[in-house]
Amino acid sequence: MDASSKLSLSGERFHVGYRLHAREAEAQAMAQHICLEQTVEFPVDLVPAGDIRDNIVGHIEDFRRINDDSYVATISFAIETTGFELPQLLNVVFGNISIMPGIRVDQLELPPALLRAFAGPRFGRTGLRERLGVATRPLLCTALKPMGLSVAELADQSYRFALGGIDIIKDDHGLANQGFAPYHERVQACVAAVERANHETGQRCLYMPNVTAPADLMLERALFAQQAGAGGLLIAPGLVGLDMMRQVADDDRINVPILSHPAWQGSLVTNPNSGISHYALFGQLARLAGADGSIYPNYGGRFAFSREDCVSICAGTAVAMAHIKPIFPAPGGGMSLARVPEMIELYGRDIIFLVGGGLHTHGPDLVQNSRYFYQLVAAL
Amino acid sequence: MDASSKLSLSGERFHVGYRLHAREAEAQAMAQHICLEQTVEFPVDLVPAGDIRDNIVGHIEDFRRINDDSYVATISFAIETTGFELPQLLNVVFGNISIMPGIRVDQLELPPALLRAFAGPRFGRTGLRERLGVATRPLLCTALKPMGLSVAELADQSYRFALGGIDIIKDDHGLANQGFAPYHERVQACVAAVERANHETGQRCLYMPNVTAPADLMLERALFAQQAGAGGLLIAPGLVGLDMMRQVADDDRINVPILSHPAWQGSLVTNPNSGISHYALFGQLARLAGADGSIYPNYGGRFAFSREDCVSICAGTAVAMAHIKPIFPAPGGGMSLARVPEMIELYGRDIIFLVGGGLHTHGPDLVQNSRYFYQLVAAL
Repeated sequence: MDASSKLSLSGERFHVGYRLHAREAEAQAMAQHICLEQTVEFPVDLVPAGDIRDNIVGHIEDFRRINDDSYVATISFAIETTGFELPQLLNVVFGNISIMPGIRVDQLELPPALLRAFAGPRFGRTGLRERLGVATRPLLCTALKPMGLSVAELADQSYRFALGGIDIIKDDHGLANQGFAPYHERVQACVAAVERANHETGQRCLYMPNVTAPADLMLERALFAQQAGAGGLLIAPGLVGLDMMRQVADDDRINVPILSHPAWQGSLVTNPNSGISHYALFGQLARLAGADGSIYPNYGGRFAFSREDCVSICAGTAVAMAHIKPIFPAPGGGMSLARVPEMIELYGRDIIFLVGGGLHTHGPDLVQNSRYFYQLVAAL
Repeated sequence: MDASSKLSLSGERFHVGYRLHAREAEAQAMAQHICLEQTVEFPVDLVPAGDIRDNIVGHIEDFRRINDDSYVATISFAIETTGFELPQLLNVVFGNISIMPGIRVDQLELPPALLRAFAGPRFGRTGLRERLGVATRPLLCTALKPMGLSVAELADQSYRFALGGIDIIKDDHGLANQGFAPYHERVQACVAAVERANHETGQRCLYMPNVTAPADLMLERALFAQQAGAGGLLIAPGLVGLDMMRQVADDDRINVPILSHPAWQGSLVTNPNSGISHYALFGQLARLAGADGSIYPNYGGRFAFSREDCVSICAGTAVAMAHIKPIFPAPGGGMSLARVPEMIELYGRDIIFLVGGGLHTHGPDLVQNSRYFYQLVAAL
């Protein structure tokens, strides 16, 4: 390693904004450390001269003060460090430094030369609207629950929701392949129930089963769902990996939209001084990994997201990312129907309203409750 | 849903210890909330009577005070809620509540009726020792780095480390399939280099390439490595999903040990009031997902783990879990050779010492540095 390294690099770099929770001198040191830790992970004095030292090691492109305890460093990395694969991109962005307190990924800026490696969502906002035949209004979504119901009971629920005008009926993310409602049987029954309702209403309600599954069964379940006539898929990338969702989205045999669910990802966002921003995780990374809609807990519900967090997710689902399509924000989690008008005012019309339990508590009749939800949204 | 639910449940339950960061009344409410949120995710008044209400909803089995702001609730769940699949087990343990601050998974107690669904590590401590032909002493491990070196340079490094007596040479976790050292070429060259050294030393040094890869390429890379003669695999389950590691470990075509790497998992452990304990994540879950050795940052290095955290990981790698084999703790991360005696005193002999950069800084000759490391450990 005496020789100076000369690599074949394009000169293209991607940028990551890191929020550093420390006093200025320490924050400066943290920024320098990130440049090494996320690339060569090697004692600075021994890093080979030439391209490795000059271009593989990250560059601090900008460093600015937010307040005495908070700084933002923008660090760039050669796009070649990612190998143009999602797991290694995640690794460069936040692999080892996830273990160091006080570092939070604020946002990603990925150049077209890197984004070219990723197809992103197959449908995005426009494609999902086309599938549903809903041009401009907000979309209505609910979940089949609770866990423990039989296939017949879940199918009956699907029928009622679809009859009442819900656009997207997803499995609750806790419905996997349990004995009380086995996956294949459940998918067939719920598809049939929704199709029956669609015949009656003339609408195109989509049923999206949960395909979050063991790694060797993900594609099998996704393909089964599509062949059975399901209108989309639910995946929790925290449980199976962002790249597993990417694989399903990229598979040309699969031509249905994907909703991502935030289960297990909470620890990445809930500590304001570390992890990943809501914007980057539920916006940018969900898109990069192929979701057409990104479910997250709405502010003011039973989870701890703030109004600003939610607005930032909405921004991340639509920010310019070359050919990567904008996707739907899908706020949910302890939402009541009463909050719909406030949410439309905040989020606008390109949104999926996910109302789960709230649709059951509004009144005893699920069809009526769904119709009420529909009319509430349609009237605005 | 008027009828009382009657499900086919075994009566077997698994237990999760949750540390709740709150005052007593709030902690009690959090525990009750976890029982619902992680299972039915449904308004409590509407949960169907019978088995769903009585047995699918979690049970608070124990609730005890640690101090005025901290309580531990032990909650049990019917094993059937997991569908006997790892992603859904993770979901029941910590899916939605990952998004709620103040809840930390302390430990899991999984009964044999649930563990039966998981093979765990193929080798474990005994199997890995057999592969290496090292009966009782601590194992020595290092990493090929820095990113940006050519295949020839990395192979040369492998040769020197193996010649010096290192037991396990792994790829740095940042080596993926970049153009400067493409995966297939790198694996073949490093395997050849290590085999050459093994012929000279009579030892059985194992080279473990990093197979953390896109979901559709994981098995291909793992199989290629094994066919090329690699002695093991490195996987970062935070980047690709715990169940992806489980799939590789379970695949009967693959008969080499696996080291897990903690990249991206940091946010789960670094906030003491939320996430998952070091014990459960790097001990219990790494084992359940098939790792034979669990890499984590040693205390006193450049990461933020405490001595107690590290001791708890060590305990988690060996605690009784039915047929699931004990695995090696593999502390690393900014470790110097000077700390080896202290670590043997703390961890004992069933340990993998991972020294990366420290093996380069000890002196200019990698073979000599490796021999020094070996003698240091062998002498103790």
